[in-house]
Amino acid sequence: MKTLIVHAHPEPKSLNSSLTDLAVTTLEAAGHEVRVSDLYAMNWKPVVDADDYGPEASSPLAVARDSGRAFETGTLTADVRAEQEKLLWADTIIFQFPLWWYSMPAILKGWVDRVFTYRFAYGVGEHSETKYGERYGEGTLAGKKALLSVTIGGPEPHYGPRGINGPIEDLLFPIHHGILFYPGIESLPPFVVYGADRLSEDAYATAAQAWEQRLRTIATTDPIPFRRQNFGDYDIPSLALKPGLEPAGSTGFSLHIRP
Amino acid sequence: MKTLIVHAHPEPKSLNSSLTDLAVTTLEAAGHEVRVSDLYAMNWKPVVDADDYGPEASSPLAVARDSGRAFETGTLTADVRAEQEKLLWADTIIFQFPLWWYSMPAILKGWVDRVFTYRFAYGVGEHSETKYGERYGEGTLAGKKALLSVTIGGPEPHYGPRGINGPIEDLLFPIHHGILFYPGIESLPPFVVYGADRLSEDAYATAAQAWEQRLRTIATTDPIPFRRQNFGDYDIPSLALKPGLEPAGSTGFSLHIRP
Repeated sequence: MKTLIVHAHPEPKSLNSSLTDLAVTTLEAAGHEVRVSDLYAMNWKPVVDADDYGPEASSPLAVARDSGRAFETGTLTADVRAEQEKLLWADTIIFQFPLWWYSMPAILKGWVDRVFTYRFAYGVGEHSETKYGERYGEGTLAGKKALLSVTIGGPEPHYGPRGINGPIEDLLFPIHHGILFYPGIESLPPFVVYGADRLSEDAYATAAQAWEQRLRTIATTDPIPFRRQNFGDYDIPSLALKPGLEPAGSTGFSLHIRP
Repeated sequence: MKTLIVHAHPEPKSLNSSLTDLAVTTLEAAGHEVRVSDLYAMNWKPVVDADDYGPEASSPLAVARDSGRAFETGTLTADVRAEQEKLLWADTIIFQFPLWWYSMPAILKGWVDRVFTYRFAYGVGEHSETKYGERYGEGTLAGKKALLSVTIGGPEPHYGPRGINGPIEDLLFPIHHGILFYPGIESLPPFVVYGADRLSEDAYATAAQAWEQRLRTIATTDPIPFRRQNFGDYDIPSLALKPGLEPAGSTGFSLHIRP
């Protein structure tokens, strides 16, 4: 297994850092290759702007078109090219981050915004009245797996099926489905540590053991079974789910998971 | 009306900039006060780190605790203090941004991550076994309204109730509910322009007219009726929605909207 860990926390002595360190040692001890993109340590530039596309950037800037041209001509900035190469190298990608305001920290969102360029992560394949690209299960990164490892300050019941924050599965859907499955990556069920701001030593030991177990079983864990776009479940060109495919009463994001 | 527009797009000649400019002129012509935080023009620092909390930042850094201390002692950085003051000044906040990877651009997420500090936007009010803070309808920013103005490259049906990307209401729920309603801000239904990458002049004219209409009716538009946390709908301390309050078959995020 070749694993890329994308790590997004400002504090090297944080719970997030402990979980990343544990992932590195656990995976390497099992004989796997591991690379880490520690975004804070790399001083990752989180903001998409014209500097990303060199002197040929158009004016006015058109992010999709400019990023696609720079990708195709090999003129993206070196930091973005390096991350795309790591993604192509890896068969498994772990994202380690704290849930801040129900989403990723800005530095990680900026990694996605800059690395997932047109022609690399979107705008791939035929776009016409009969096909809207190779995405949602196909694409540049098809065949790879991802695993979100997320720390959350609040308690688990707040994120349950009826919890006030919304179900954690739904809060992570825009990442699992919208960011990762879009260019073809399948996600394993997330690893989540709740109460992360006040974790006792015992609770950390329990979490660490559970994390090791998840890491050791990556190869045998089933991914979230999102529906693939181009295999009959969706009408063309609306890309609305065809009637009757979902379990009775299913709505919203859950429509896009195979029963 | 006192309106703060938080604008997040790298290109001053973009559709997003046109919509922000139109908002300024429309609101000012109607006699309202308007301030704009143009995050790219301000070179907004999007990344939470120890520099945000001055020489007294703890080591290891604890983002919640450190940001709360810095907030309470008035030692947050000047850029963050200025944005908090604008939020306190405004009665209405407009967010103008392109939907990138089903969420905000990193620079705007970083505005939230840095400005919505502990003791200002979260960690407000009693936290005990019988009450979990003043949030979701109460809090520092209660009584204010927000309006997301979002441009989207893809076509509208992809974001419909059965659309492959997920319903736009659900994709924006973590912003409307998780970020804005949490410290008390009520959101009006969003203004969304689809097909934004290839908008014809006619389509722009139609969108601009619709946007002006939305701006002129802010005061009379009903907000999304999210359930408030501390008014009987939720069990304590699980903060799970009490049984039977929702319409039959309702699940996921929609549970948290009053029927």
